[in-house]
Amino acid sequence: MNDSTAAERPGLSRRGLLGLVGVGVAGSAIGFGVDRVLTPEAASASGAAALYPFFGEHQAGIVTPAQDRLHFAAFDVSDISREELAELLSDWTYAADRMTSGLGAGEFGATSGPYDSPPDDTGEALDLPPAGLTITFGFGPSLFDDRFGLASKRPDALIDLPHFPGDALVDTLVGGDLCIQACSDDPQVAVHAIRNLSRIAFGRATLRWSQLGFGRTSSTTRAQATPRNLFGFKDGTANLRAEDTAAVEHDVWVGQDGGWMAGGSYLVSRKIRMMVETWDRASLREQERVVGRTKGEGAPLSGGTEFTKPDFALKGRGEKPLIDEASHVRLSHPSSNNGAAMLRRGYNFVDGNDDLGRLNAGLFFICFQSDPREQFVPIQLRLAKHDAMGEYLRHVGSGIFAVPPGARKGRSIGAGLFA
Amino acid sequence: MNDSTAAERPGLSRRGLLGLVGVGVAGSAIGFGVDRVLTPEAASASGAAALYPFFGEHQAGIVTPAQDRLHFAAFDVSDISREELAELLSDWTYAADRMTSGLGAGEFGATSGPYDSPPDDTGEALDLPPAGLTITFGFGPSLFDDRFGLASKRPDALIDLPHFPGDALVDTLVGGDLCIQACSDDPQVAVHAIRNLSRIAFGRATLRWSQLGFGRTSSTTRAQATPRNLFGFKDGTANLRAEDTAAVEHDVWVGQDGGWMAGGSYLVSRKIRMMVETWDRASLREQERVVGRTKGEGAPLSGGTEFTKPDFALKGRGEKPLIDEASHVRLSHPSSNNGAAMLRRGYNFVDGNDDLGRLNAGLFFICFQSDPREQFVPIQLRLAKHDAMGEYLRHVGSGIFAVPPGARKGRSIGAGLFA
Repeated sequence: MNDSTAAERPGLSRRGLLGLVGVGVAGSAIGFGVDRVLTPEAASASGAAALYPFFGEHQAGIVTPAQDRLHFAAFDVSDISREELAELLSDWTYAADRMTSGLGAGEFGATSGPYDSPPDDTGEALDLPPAGLTITFGFGPSLFDDRFGLASKRPDALIDLPHFPGDALVDTLVGGDLCIQACSDDPQVAVHAIRNLSRIAFGRATLRWSQLGFGRTSSTTRAQATPRNLFGFKDGTANLRAEDTAAVEHDVWVGQDGGWMAGGSYLVSRKIRMMVETWDRASLREQERVVGRTKGEGAPLSGGTEFTKPDFALKGRGEKPLIDEASHVRLSHPSSNNGAAMLRRGYNFVDGNDDLGRLNAGLFFICFQSDPREQFVPIQLRLAKHDAMGEYLRHVGSGIFAVPPGARKGRSIGAGLFA
Repeated sequence: MNDSTAAERPGLSRRGLLGLVGVGVAGSAIGFGVDRVLTPEAASASGAAALYPFFGEHQAGIVTPAQDRLHFAAFDVSDISREELAELLSDWTYAADRMTSGLGAGEFGATSGPYDSPPDDTGEALDLPPAGLTITFGFGPSLFDDRFGLASKRPDALIDLPHFPGDALVDTLVGGDLCIQACSDDPQVAVHAIRNLSRIAFGRATLRWSQLGFGRTSSTTRAQATPRNLFGFKDGTANLRAEDTAAVEHDVWVGQDGGWMAGGSYLVSRKIRMMVETWDRASLREQERVVGRTKGEGAPLSGGTEFTKPDFALKGRGEKPLIDEASHVRLSHPSSNNGAAMLRRGYNFVDGNDDLGRLNAGLFFICFQSDPREQFVPIQLRLAKHDAMGEYLRHVGSGIFAVPPGARKGRSIGAGLFA
């Protein structure tokens, strides 16, 4: 089965239905009309709040104004065929389109349908508007091994990330064949999306790792105020913005020569634990030196206000640059990286505490770019070697994913991969 | 030092300052005037959003309209003296009063004060309104051992919880000498509160376990719509409401004969993992039987709408009661428990996933009551033995805490304990 066959069907694949309803009663569920009218509950769930269409030239959730909450999930694909993988993507497309529209994951919703079958939707978002929900899919390097006949489709830019100095990666927080980024202004809506997509994948893909986040650390449009990370500093002041169309075209989207990835992007995720207890014992002077900006306003230490361009040449007492050579703002700045910039879209996280009573807190860093070989990798290599912030950070998780272009209505996400 | 001495001081104790600024530079920080005017950043942080005063007859965060987000923390007290414990509570009182007012945790805020000392506040909530922040303190049974001379003050109602059938408690998620419940409509504000209180406690108390929650599962006033838990059902329909003053007086607050606990309450927390993958494979019929209510409307299966009183006697086909004998709504209902009721104030949680790819998700159950021996314990014993929902639940964490009455302005939380 190819993707267009999958897309012609109006609902979930039989496999998807099996995942939803359990093998024992699948037959009875399939007997019901799949184009049944939506339940009032499902219809009313598509409230007045922000709604981003799933289908389009690019996937939503990249230059979309950053929502407040994140649920990110990486999956391992089970021992299935190429056709079954395509079917999974078709099923995910179908459910993602519904959920981003404020509907339940399947036709029957959470409260209607055959009474003796499990509902098509888990129900915890029943009364909630989509709250700006976006669902963004990506493919990890391991998807392009010899299991699915996709090796020849692996884009050159989808590299295996190198080891970075200081990396303290935990195997269970790294990699994944597939990823889904769900963002919404309501955490329950984001969680609902990942949960239902995991459920649909039953028997075909298994959650490898997942991460909840709050308090986004970047603005993706100028209309958003700059939020703060858990070091208490504004984060994302110099981020790429959706309005900078030329920069976005160049730095975020893969060009027309990109084959099946044209109009797509590359996502790099890093789970960065922040040693907040250590940071909190550093003086305000040291904190500002490390960041290269003031803590309150977020202005560069060379002067001005938050959006003043940093003057890295400006010197102060003792002929020392006002913005330290090892400061984060200098090392990550495009001018230190041959003009390379990325669209950052990270979230703060707190996952309880460790055995020593320290908060297990930090930044779930996400960035999008047209070529990680030119963007994330050289920037991170520079930071890993020289960044004064490094002693307060520990990179524990990592992922790289090819994010295909948006799906056209009636086609599956990643359709080009199977063409 | 007793509590009134502590409360006379205008700011943090010297120990608290040491915790904040690090031993090396403490002297310089103390040199600054403690009643320094607030920074503009700090003042502007107290925005238009909901603000609940810290001082009062009862602690806030109990009958307060349930906020959307939770950060709960349990602490072990270090090897310190009774006087130092009282001082910690005085320092916490000081900081909690400031933070619930929208100010930084200490006088100098996050961005002013001595440049060569760490800021008094970690800064991540700098630009945020308090968003209804409440900070609620409690004392665990272990605080009343022989370390602090408090054994004679242990209330009879502060029992060690019995083992409940089916308990699968994890040692690192149980107990604690002290607890803090921080609730806010903004998770970053709740996290900021717990982080700064932990920091102030440095050297005096250590985080034992902590939990973030979202999507509250109960309404504490009639003005709030009933939210849904991760089984997709409305949760808290029959909860006690702040408006039911007679019931609250009887069921939530400790009476005037309660000694130092008069006007206080008892908090029981249970971290309840929900086996959502198993639940999602149960039929709609089974799910509704287990709960005893419809999934959509939340009406009792005996008929009516959400707020119709369940008719447990009403029978259907085959003379079987419409509301199953083992249903959650029947077993937890006051009519099954000699009229016992509690104020529930729980939150949903998702803590990533386990090694099998199952979401580590569930309910962080919190309830408040005047006497857990008459309320939580018998109700939970009945549920643990008979509740049909039990097979989908696993209780992994547990805590019981004496929540003292509210502090009067100028006095410390729990002052009566040291009187």
